[in-house]
Amino acid sequence: MTDLTGWRERADAALTRALPDPSLPPQRLHAAMRHAVLLGGKRMRPLLVYASGAALGANADALDAPAVAVELIHAYSLVHDDLPAMDDDALRRGQPTVHVAFDEATAILAGDALQSQAFEVLANAPVPAEIRVELLRTLATASGAAGMCGGQALDLAATGNGATLSVNDLERLHALKTGALIRAAVRMGALCGGASVAELDGLDRYADALGLAFQVRDDILDIEGDSATLGKTAGKDVAQEKATFPALIGLDASRARLQELSAVMTAELASFGARADALAALGRLAIERDR
Amino acid sequence: MTDLTGWRERADAALTRALPDPSLPPQRLHAAMRHAVLLGGKRMRPLLVYASGAALGANADALDAPAVAVELIHAYSLVHDDLPAMDDDALRRGQPTVHVAFDEATAILAGDALQSQAFEVLANAPVPAEIRVELLRTLATASGAAGMCGGQALDLAATGNGATLSVNDLERLHALKTGALIRAAVRMGALCGGASVAELDGLDRYADALGLAFQVRDDILDIEGDSATLGKTAGKDVAQEKATFPALIGLDASRARLQELSAVMTAELASFGARADALAALGRLAIERDR
Repeated sequence: MTDLTGWRERADAALTRALPDPSLPPQRLHAAMRHAVLLGGKRMRPLLVYASGAALGANADALDAPAVAVELIHAYSLVHDDLPAMDDDALRRGQPTVHVAFDEATAILAGDALQSQAFEVLANAPVPAEIRVELLRTLATASGAAGMCGGQALDLAATGNGATLSVNDLERLHALKTGALIRAAVRMGALCGGASVAELDGLDRYADALGLAFQVRDDILDIEGDSATLGKTAGKDVAQEKATFPALIGLDASRARLQELSAVMTAELASFGARADALAALGRLAIERDR
Repeated sequence: MTDLTGWRERADAALTRALPDPSLPPQRLHAAMRHAVLLGGKRMRPLLVYASGAALGANADALDAPAVAVELIHAYSLVHDDLPAMDDDALRRGQPTVHVAFDEATAILAGDALQSQAFEVLANAPVPAEIRVELLRTLATASGAAGMCGGQALDLAATGNGATLSVNDLERLHALKTGALIRAAVRMGALCGGASVAELDGLDRYADALGLAFQVRDDILDIEGDSATLGKTAGKDVAQEKATFPALIGLDASRARLQELSAVMTAELASFGARADALAALGRLAIERDR
């Protein structure tokens, strides 16, 4: 029923097709764009597009475009996040980050071009124009000042001031920084399946719970995980005095919050029955993963 | 007939409305976005949208969205261009650049959010969904690796290697770096007026000539202009050993090229008659301006 591996391969193939040919000029830009997108990643957002589309009975061919587009936005945000002026990270998924493998100017441009590419892919999606416009609006709103970029700005403002954030502030920050794009992924899949307003509302609440659960789990793993399994440095949040759920409410309350969020997801998916099995599996993955 | 000042004011008002409220959080991001867009600029691209729309009899209300969107893309590209890792400019239009007035991280994010905002504005344009999709595709393609970002990448590769560029290479660079967005502006205006394929093709050729003429004039002004009138440092291209038309083909041949481009524009606009007066005026402005 839930073919996460098949969808992941499908997303990888669609991403590879969507990126500009690395043998054509400007080669360095094209190579940097491919480096940013094709060297790994969980593909959680594309999986959510396919799973949400499956819950609504959407045609898989229609889902490739939003699956690719949301991952291109995610990938560009990581390239820019890793820049020296932002988080200054040299490694991601065990590979040199784009500004290290290439240079800062190329990393800025590659991120910019990936964002444009996301909207170009959606503009060419094989769905009726009315739905394409909805997909484009959904992704643009989720990416910008009222979504992901706004969340990044809140995160910048909070960095070093972790102690002054309330748990509500922290949830708001994550709802924008990572939640907006996760919600967009789920919503775009559902739009391709002709979801009703009530169905979209329920899936929004599922997506919000999943996005938050993903982040709470991330914070717990930073404390409990080991660096080898995580593929990144455990304990980094604590060292950087970042606001995290365990720091603000403790580990036990963080685990209890995960269970609450799991219950929200189950409740919101109930009316979809077995068609939502993949969405349910992705919800469990967000909560139970160890990396 | 040609009300460039009225259109410029209309574009400024529409831009002000399209940007997020600076009193709402994240205030710093919103303030940086407004700084990038609202502190001046010729508004050449919005003027081209209105003028092209007028040539096709488009409703002015339909033109605000593409006029705003193309200027938001232009503005974001300047913010990222000015970053230390790119051109490292501290001043633009006599004002501190965004990374100087705010900080580098905020400048990166503000540019990113402006790009998203451009597509959001187009997704909400008051035109039929089929035309909206065409507008979105046009702007996305012009902004990305096959357009503006690609041109920036070619420019990066050429910087310091000015002497090795041929005049064809230089025209190709400008056709992408500034030409793609100028062409998109003209095309979007025409799309809102229901232009035929033949009309779009003719306007593409007009736009390509105008974009190139603008750049040739820029290069001539860098040699002949004075810094006070230009509002920027004259002689900078020569000092940086940038590839320019005067450097590659000489001043006289550059002036002759301008006249050729002027003739192309006149020929392509002929079939539109008086409806294209504003486009013709913008063409003359590109060629005759002294700043």
